[in-house]
Amino acid sequence: MAAAGWPGCARSLRGVVLDMCGVLYDSGEGDGVAIPGSVEAVKKLKESDLQLRFCTNETQATREKFVAKLQRLGFDISVSEVFSPAPAAVSVLKERALRPHLLVYDGVIPEFDSVDKTNPNCVVIGDAAENFSYQNLNEAFRVLVGLEKPVLFSLGQGRYYKETDGLKLDVGVYMKALEYACDLKAEVIGKPSPTFFQSALNDMGLQPHEALMIGDDLVNDVGGAQHCGMKGVQVRTGKYRPSDERHPTVTADGTVDNLAQAVDMILSQRR
Amino acid sequence: MAAAGWPGCARSLRGVVLDMCGVLYDSGEGDGVAIPGSVEAVKKLKESDLQLRFCTNETQATREKFVAKLQRLGFDISVSEVFSPAPAAVSVLKERALRPHLLVYDGVIPEFDSVDKTNPNCVVIGDAAENFSYQNLNEAFRVLVGLEKPVLFSLGQGRYYKETDGLKLDVGVYMKALEYACDLKAEVIGKPSPTFFQSALNDMGLQPHEALMIGDDLVNDVGGAQHCGMKGVQVRTGKYRPSDERHPTVTADGTVDNLAQAVDMILSQRR
Repeated sequence: MAAAGWPGCARSLRGVVLDMCGVLYDSGEGDGVAIPGSVEAVKKLKESDLQLRFCTNETQATREKFVAKLQRLGFDISVSEVFSPAPAAVSVLKERALRPHLLVYDGVIPEFDSVDKTNPNCVVIGDAAENFSYQNLNEAFRVLVGLEKPVLFSLGQGRYYKETDGLKLDVGVYMKALEYACDLKAEVIGKPSPTFFQSALNDMGLQPHEALMIGDDLVNDVGGAQHCGMKGVQVRTGKYRPSDERHPTVTADGTVDNLAQAVDMILSQRR
Repeated sequence: MAAAGWPGCARSLRGVVLDMCGVLYDSGEGDGVAIPGSVEAVKKLKESDLQLRFCTNETQATREKFVAKLQRLGFDISVSEVFSPAPAAVSVLKERALRPHLLVYDGVIPEFDSVDKTNPNCVVIGDAAENFSYQNLNEAFRVLVGLEKPVLFSLGQGRYYKETDGLKLDVGVYMKALEYACDLKAEVIGKPSPTFFQSALNDMGLQPHEALMIGDDLVNDVGGAQHCGMKGVQVRTGKYRPSDERHPTVTADGTVDNLAQAVDMILSQRR
């Protein structure tokens, strides 16, 4: 934990926001595996005087199914503590009376059950994986070009992620594709959007400077949180790469080996 | 033909370069249909003292099959007069000793027969249509991220085109997707790349100011030719849209109803 500012920040801290995949667990066959020490680290945070929320860009399952998986891995987590893009999108759609055409993973569709999807006047894309077919992309494109004011929402803007059978393209890549096709700029819902971090802060009743984000993604977790006025710490697990520590534009407020080490340092500095 | 400069240009002209789809014919069921007057216009140009070449971004068929289709529509065209991205890509690959991973339409693969494709050290994408599956995109992406110096060639950079069953996303959209995924800039082969127009000029032995491009695509045909130092005229057929005539960055040297009108004006001004 080399960066300055960290100890002072830890003392005045009132809340912690955790990324999930790559911080709590690694995905893979079945439920994946918990990262060593992370189950206990979450437990310690819950027993402390700090508030705790989880911010994930997971969009392949409903929050209910996703949280059930984490619980099977041993984590003490409830649905109300988890912030993910699909429910955030539902709020935005309802606020703005928008009816989406969805290009998302089948597993996340139930999150949109309460939304009117007839005669769509916007497009929502998530990490649709195999659903990113030529035909489905053409269909989303036709909806957008048919609108007088095309609106595209992207649930995150990741480039790629790793699964057991190799690297897979993430939603950001298809967001860029549709942006170019329609000559528009998508609205990103999820990390690194400041609005998304703010919703977790609002839920805790905290100001940005009172909260710390811990994630494995330097740009979307650490940089996103910093943009919002929070501190951001990167763990050397998940998608961390050594080159992150000399990134041209984003510098973490601290870099630690894993969540267990981060939590031990936070709690020891508060005694 | 409102634009200034046109008559002077027509008098000193030594060659004409024609776009094909949207200028000579409209695509659709089977071979598509010749645009009225265009068969005769090509005949008149061939009988004149002007040199004539064709520049197309067509990448769904070999030049042989493509030219055979045009001949069936009544055009007097031979393969050696047609410049298309796939043969241009083959030249570049051989010059730079690159072995491509191809993500293209099945029909154009024979153009790459003479190229070594083992152990690929670059990726070439064309308008692959249904071949733009999630799996094939992931595969192209994995080749690129596995290279120390990733090189991506894109056969054109179109956004979309129209077929009888609706609008379809073109190669440029997938180029942008892979550019974002790999954080690189693709090299475009085909229109609007100046190198591509230059190859047609070299073949005619002409300087850019001695040649005129006629196309229906304001940015890729007209703007591309102008970038190369040629004059560019737009026809009001094919993908022409009235808004093209007030485009923020590209202004055609002339706008005409169709190829027949353009050719009549050129030839009448040379008498």
